[in-house]
Amino acid sequence: MKIRLHDRASFQPDRMAKVALAASPRMLVDLYCLEPGQAQKPHAHAEQDKLYVVLEGRVRVAVHGVEHVIEPGEAVVAAAGHEHGVVNDSGARAVLLVVVAPPPPHA
Amino acid sequence: MKIRLHDRASFQPDRMAKVALAASPRMLVDLYCLEPGQAQKPHAHAEQDKLYVVLEGRVRVAVHGVEHVIEPGEAVVAAAGHEHGVVNDSGARAVLLVVVAPPPPHA
Repeated sequence: MKIRLHDRASFQPDRMAKVALAASPRMLVDLYCLEPGQAQKPHAHAEQDKLYVVLEGRVRVAVHGVEHVIEPGEAVVAAAGHEHGVVNDSGARAVLLVVVAPPPPHA
Repeated sequence: MKIRLHDRASFQPDRMAKVALAASPRMLVDLYCLEPGQAQKPHAHAEQDKLYVVLEGRVRVAVHGVEHVIEPGEAVVAAAGHEHGVVNDSGARAVLLVVVAPPPPHA
């Protein structure tokens, strides 16, 4: 199935929206859609890697104590066990492609 | 580490170039860089999912017998066990972000 990433973006007024694009026992593919000011709080997964790719907007991603400002065409990997979080402190909406492998046990 | 995806693209005259961006026991993140006419032959991984995201250009991805023409901002997932291949039959270079989870045993 072809996925048109930008067409799938969907926002929530009260918190970051996570849009599931694909899920298997091996990989989760989501969009994270953040209005200005929205965030996903820092957290860690013991056994999961997470790849962030910015599709639209600009966000601040903190991974293992290092902050990265990333824009379209830029990516950051949070390795298993490393705390990571994302904040949209820009003035515009942001859309990220996020891949998690393997899926967390609670997913 | 921030990855500037387009800066990492690198082409080979004789075959599709695969540029490793990140690798762990959980996930491989690569760029596939295809000159016009280059391809990755159809193949399958019994236990791996593969996500293709087009960053630049236009390619034809065949997954499990279905062909998809994908362009920037579009993606296709090849699930474990499903044959998949990619051809750049356009007249321009193509760059894809490819995530494989988990890495194949031979990777």
